[in-house]
Formats: sequence, C-alpha cells, structure tokens
Amino acid sequence: VNLRRLFDPDSIAVIGASATEGKLGYEAMRNVADFDGPCYPVNPHGEGEVFGREFVASIDEVGERVDLAMLAVPAPAVPDVIDECGEAGVGAAIVFAGGFAEVDEEGEALQDRLVEAAERHDVALLGPNISGYFMPHQDLYTSFATNPEVVEPGNVAVIAQSGGLAHSLAFQGVNEGWGFSGVVPLGNRAVIDFPPVVEYFDADPRTEAILLHVEGTDDARAMVETCEAIETPVAALPVGEHDVDDFAASHTGALTGDFDLYVGGFHQYGVPVVRSTTGLLDAGHALANAPVPDGANVGVVTGQAGPGIVIADRLQGHGASLPPLAEETRETISEVLPGMTYARNPVDTGRPMPGFSDLVGAVARDPNVDAVLVYMLYEEAAGFPPTGITDLPESTGKPVVFVTDGPREAVDEHLAAMESAGVPCFLTPERGADAVAAMLEYGRLNREDDREPRRERVPDGVDATDGGGSG
Amino acid sequence: VNLRRLFDPDSIAVIGASATEGKLGYEAMRNVADFDGPCYPVNPHGEGEVFGREFVASIDEVGERVDLAMLAVPAPAVPDVIDECGEAGVGAAIVFAGGFAEVDEEGEALQDRLVEAAERHDVALLGPNISGYFMPHQDLYTSFATNPEVVEPGNVAVIAQSGGLAHSLAFQGVNEGWGFSGVVPLGNRAVIDFPPVVEYFDADPRTEAILLHVEGTDDARAMVETCEAIETPVAALPVGEHDVDDFAASHTGALTGDFDLYVGGFHQYGVPVVRSTTGLLDAGHALANAPVPDGANVGVVTGQAGPGIVIADRLQGHGASLPPLAEETRETISEVLPGMTYARNPVDTGRPMPGFSDLVGAVARDPNVDAVLVYMLYEEAAGFPPTGITDLPESTGKPVVFVTDGPREAVDEHLAAMESAGVPCFLTPERGADAVAAMLEYGRLNREDDREPRRERVPDGVDATDGGGSG
Repeated sequence: VNLRRLFDPDSIAVIGASATEGKLGYEAMRNVADFDGPCYPVNPHGEGEVFGREFVASIDEVGERVDLAMLAVPAPAVPDVIDECGEAGVGAAIVFAGGFAEVDEEGEALQDRLVEAAERHDVALLGPNISGYFMPHQDLYTSFATNPEVVEPGNVAVIAQSGGLAHSLAFQGVNEGWGFSGVVPLGNRAVIDFPPVVEYFDADPRTEAILLHVEGTDDARAMVETCEAIETPVAALPVGEHDVDDFAASHTGALTGDFDLYVGGFHQYGVPVVRSTTGLLDAGHALANAPVPDGANVGVVTGQAGPGIVIADRLQGHGASLPPLAEETRETISEVLPGMTYARNPVDTGRPMPGFSDLVGAVARDPNVDAVLVYMLYEEAAGFPPTGITDLPESTGKPVVFVTDGPREAVDEHLAAMESAGVPCFLTPERGADAVAAMLEYGRLNREDDREPRRERVPDGVDATDGGGSG
Repeated sequence: VNLRRLFDPDSIAVIGASATEGKLGYEAMRNVADFDGPCYPVNPHGEGEVFGREFVASIDEVGERVDLAMLAVPAPAVPDVIDECGEAGVGAAIVFAGGFAEVDEEGEALQDRLVEAAERHDVALLGPNISGYFMPHQDLYTSFATNPEVVEPGNVAVIAQSGGLAHSLAFQGVNEGWGFSGVVPLGNRAVIDFPPVVEYFDADPRTEAILLHVEGTDDARAMVETCEAIETPVAALPVGEHDVDDFAASHTGALTGDFDLYVGGFHQYGVPVVRSTTGLLDAGHALANAPVPDGANVGVVTGQAGPGIVIADRLQGHGASLPPLAEETRETISEVLPGMTYARNPVDTGRPMPGFSDLVGAVARDPNVDAVLVYMLYEEAAGFPPTGITDLPESTGKPVVFVTDGPREAVDEHLAAMESAGVPCFLTPERGADAVAAMLEYGRLNREDDREPRRERVPDGVDATDGGGSG
C-alpha cells in the first residue's frame, strides 16, 4: 500500500461536510479548512461555503483532483461512497463511522463490502471507526477532535488501535510540551493494519521513535516482524492483560488475544513493552532523543537522596544494575565531595553544589556505566538548572536523562533548553526511572543474538528542534 | 509531644540567618520573612536588617517570646544551640543540617547529644537533616526551598521521611492544581517520628487524608498502630523493595527494613499501599475528596472505548470487579443508547451525547456498583465537560471519579469546577484507575473484622474549597 496520498495529500475532500456546528462533518471540515491546498466540502445539500470553502454536490465533480477523502457519513452509506470515491480517482480515505465488524454480523457484512470497494479501486482506507489522524509537521489534522492543532510537531509517531487512545497520548504530549511526527489511529483496520503504517513512519526522516497501542490484531506476526525489520526504535503498549476481551471486541472488532503472547512476541522481535499510556509516551521521548545504551548499567547522580532512593529502587525493579563506580570516578567524587570516603552509586551530593556537573561528567565517562540518570529538585539556590551536562551524550555516546520535580512554570523553560541540547527530561522520579528502563530494555532486546543495537545516534540539531519542548 | 508550637507558632527565630544570598540562613529567612508575627533573624555577626527584620545577636535576647527556632547552623554546633534555645524558652526547633546518625559513629554521638538537649528542655525537634515544612493554610513555609509559597492550601497532608520526597510531592501537587494542609519531612526522626505528626494532622479539621512516605523506622509498629487508631484515611508509599538499604541508611539513618513486612503491616492496619509518588498523591486526592466505597464493584462509563479498555484492564489488575449492571440500569442504557441490545460494564457510549449524564446517574444508582469512574476525552463538540454528574456523590453516597485527557489549558478550569463540587478529577486513564483502586483498597482494608469503614463522608463546601484546583 502506498500511503503517500493518505498521509501527505495534495488535496482533500470532506464527504458529508456540514455547516451545522457539532456535526462530525462540521468539526472535521473546521480542522482541515486551513489546509494548504484544495479542500472540498462535499454534500448534495450543501449551499454556499463552509469555513471559506465552497460546497460541491458530489465527489464526482472533484475526485480526480482529490488525494484524500474524509468520510463523515453514516456506516450504511460508506461502501457505496468508497466506490464513488474510487471511481472518481480518489486515492485514500478515512472512515469515521462505527457500526461495522465491531458490532454484529450485519456490521461484518458491511465491512466486507467496504473492503471490497476499497480494494477494487486501490483506495488506501484508514478505519473505519476512527477519529482521524494528526500530521503536525504538515499542519494537517484530519479529525473531528476539538482544537487538534494544539498537538505540535515532533519526532515521535503514535500508531494506536483506538482513536480515543491516540487522542489520550497526543494530549499527554501537549501537556508535556512534546510534539509528534504523526498520530494515527487504526480503528477496525479493515484495509490498513499496523505494518504499512509502521513502515511509513520508519521511512519518515522526522520520526525517531514509533509507539504502538495494540488491543489485538489478526496478524500479530506481521506486526512484530515489521517492527524488527525497521531501523526506527519501537515501543509498545499491549492492553488486555485481564478480562476485557468482550469489551475490546466490541471496540475495534479485535480479540485482545493472549496478553502474555503479545508481550513475548514484542520482546522476541526487539520491542520493549510498557504498562501505561504515560510510560509509552515517555519511552518514545527517551528513545527518540537519546543514544541507545550499550548495557544495563545505570549511573545515578542525585542532588536529593529521597527521590534518588525511589529511582534506584524502581530501576532495580526493572532489572537495571547500579554498578560500583570505577576508581577514577571515585577519585573525582572524593575531590568534589571531600567528606565522602567511598563513592557509592547512586552518587548523592546531599544538595547540589558548584561541582555537580563535574560529578555527572565523571559518572558518564565511567566505563562501568551505560546510561546516566540525573535527579535534581527545583531549587535555584542549589544550582537548578544544572549546567554543563548537555554535551555528555555527544562526548560519551551514552544517554543522559534529567529528572526533576518543580513547578512547571518555573522549570519548563529550563527543561526545554536541556532537551534541545540532547538531554531528555522528565518530571517525577518514577517517570524518569521508567523511561531509562525502557531504553535499557530496547538496548537489551536488540543486542540479543549478537545483533548490534539497530540504531545508534547522537542528538543533532534537527532532531533536537523537532523533539523540542519541555519535560 | 505537643506540636502546636512547632506547626502553628506565634513567633519564629532563624538561627544562623544570613544576608548572603544562596546561604541556607538567607533562603530560610526569605521564606518566613512575611510571617504574620514576630520573626527574628539570629546571628552574632548580623547587622541591620534582612528582609525587613532586624538581626538579634543571640536567641537569649528573644527566646522566651519564640515558639519555633529554625536552625541554619552547621551540625557540630546544633546540640549547643538547642540547649541555648531550650534555656531561653523556645518550644520547638527545625534542624536543617545533615551530618548526624546518617553519616557515621561520630554523627550518631552528635545526634545523641542533640536528642538529650531537646529532651532536657522539652523542645519539639523536627529533623535533623531536613528541608523544613510547609503549612500553606498558615502561609508558613519554614524551608530553604525556592518559591515554596507556590504550594497552595488544601486538604491533604504529606508526612515524608525525606525532605526531597516531600518537595517532589508538593511540586507534583502544584502542577495538578492541588493543595495541601501540610507537607512535613521527618529526616532523621531524632525526636519526632511518624506517630505524633500523624496524630497532629488527624486532629486538624482541614486535613481529610494523610500520605506517608516511609523509608524505614525503628518503630514500625507504633507507626501503623497510630494509622489504625485515627479517623483520617491514610495511604502509604514504602520504598526499598529492592536493594537500596545502604543508600537509605546513609540518607536518614534508617534501614529500609523488609519491604514486604512494611506492606503487610500497612495492610493489616488499614493503610493502602501505593507504588509511586504520583500514585500516593492521587490516592490522597481521591480519599480526601470522595466518600469511601462500600465494596470493590466499579461501574465504568466511558465516552471512548480505547481508554475505557485500558481503565477496565488496570482496575481488574488491582483486584477491582466490574460487575454486570442491574436490570433497571440496563433499561436506562437501552433508552439512552437504543442501539445497544445488552448493556455491559464498562458502558461505552461510542462518543458522548446529551444523555451521557443520565447513564452515569443510572450506573451510580445501580445497587451492584460501589464506585463510579467516568472517562470522557476533551471534545467540546461531544459534550465536554459532562454536566449533571456532580450531585451523584451526595445523592448516592458513592465516589464518582472523573478521568479525562485534554490540553490543560482547555480542561483545567472545568476540572476545578467539578472537583469543587465533589468529583475528584484525574488526567490519564491509568492515574484515574489507580486512584479508584486506592479508594477500593482503603475501603476493603477497613471493612475487615466487620469494622465499618472508619470514615464516611460526603463532600461539603468547606472540603471542596480546600481541596479545590484541577486535575
């Protein structure tokens, strides 16, 4: 499937466009009305304009000029409309309506007709039963959501089985100040399932990590094999550990399948598995913006012991090791912290002081250490924000993650600056520890079989800008 | 121990106050300079004023008029200063300095001298090795932190073994728009350990839930027995599941002890245990602002299936039950959602619609349901925010929790309104599910032995105002 006309269209039609506020066809039209190209509201009853675009009565009138049709029409009409679209030359379609295979046998039959129509005309069909996608780099929000344009450009792509979950992840990103290269819900996956969308984002130079939300798919093997074949790191949130099969089946027509099998499958094919939407977002943020660690040894430097203990506890719960530090590192620590006769890991400075970044540097250069987590509370009098640690990912090739707690109003700007310099930032001890653990897991899974990690990168200007925003 | 002079002083002295920015004695002075009462910077070398308060040379000069002394002096000087304070009539003290029992044998001896001095004069001593406390209702921030006044008044009290952790929780609350009745770090607990502080907040009418961060204590039994004896709900975050004993001992001089024993002890004495700082904060927010559920049966109503599945999955992982709904409820659902021939739990509306709150009401009144979780994405065209659900906690006596995802700028105001009407709000599916699970756990642990839940309340205006702010 060529997804160019779906995800990077030169022209759009909204079929079932409406001038009545609150209707799907109105909300969808509003979100694409500013599209930088032809955008046609299609409705046989439409008169005049909606959002400055003139109604056309039928897709026939404009079809050959339309890459992407967004269908805001009731389910029973969808197969015929797809036929019309295909005959008119439309290349791709998004179907919002539910009421297909997720409902009953009648719905299954309707979905079969839909698939036949799409395949007959080679229409790249997303859905049905979805809310549309966001492509913030193209300023393209093919959705009926409210204010989707708050979702900013970035370097992480989300592919979610559920439209609601896609929105959840996108809005969480907004609240973190993190952007996306794309947010794509799959819904019933009648035509387009995970593999081609994963491949699309792998080929997208703006995408540095891909996140999957998976309720279940008929072809799990194709999904995980695709993840293994690509270069871009992938992390996954499978759901359905407990008994939610009926509910999930009624949602996107998929059995959640055996949760443990999904987890095992992802692991086998190099994909770390996380346990929450927030954990998924954080894993993507870390994987997209820091080098992959060569091992599971974490050096922790903390300005405050309490959060440091929480972090050390949690990292070890994830299977990370906090190794003893090398002789040279211990000497540096003794110089900076003369009171300490031996240097532990975590390195606890009591309270940050001018030599804090020297300590972080020494730990980052320590041959026993594969990844560095730095914690420092917001306290201006104690040297927040830390300086001199943003060059470490490039000079050491190791990931350096900064974790803090502080009022967003006070810290966001500083964190944005650190992130644009290649240090992913997280608020709360646990989110920082979980994000580092996801990186370790990605490294571990992709070193097996003596494979090299599939991707080694140090941050550069372009990525940093794309991935900008604060922790 | 009478903690009135410690936590509600009429007068304060900062010993070791300084006019040099960045010094502890400067930062501490800055934070209490606006105190509504006498506040004396004490320093034999001090000249003139600092933050509008005139230096005094010695605590002797003002001691009989001082309730609380904050000690910003080096550890070796602390025991003698406590002696001077006691002789001068000072009632309570906060000791910032580290370098006591957490360090070495010499430090232990120093701490012994400190304890003797405090006990000799009956000084209520908090610390050593802490950052000071916040009492936002009194506008009192006895800390060297930066901008502690961003921590707002509320109805949840935090008692943390670590000052850093106390700040982490307080700042997380700031970022949620949630306030605190108090945030108290205990540090080395040389004199004041958990029990009297727990009792203090239980007696405080502004405190509706108490949160504990526990690394380890020499008298765990006294701690849990105190938690059981009081009326106010308590939730706890014990740390040290993995091997962090050395680090923890070097922090507040406590062995983390056996993690499983702590968890078991808390459970036995009616205290739910959470697994993260954020989970602790959320548990407190839920327990302080909603009635305690009578059982573990949750009714879930969701506007979007994907997040609803995540919530159902997670709730079941916590041991919650999602029971079938009663006949009457199913009838209401059929009326509002005519397409659905049988009504499941979670109730999935596809997308919210005008009858959404009728559904929530029917589920809340369902005799099979003990607690209600409502999820709705931010989508103005689909009825966000939901109306008509805020009267349900009062009319049904059951907790109703609202969970959403949306840009904070767009949703915060609406969530604040719902919270002030008695519906705790959370962003992200998992945080909502975890908070409900903590409430269920509190109810379960306190129904054992045929005990009634120790506390049954419906929200009232006073609590709601105190607990205001948004999710």
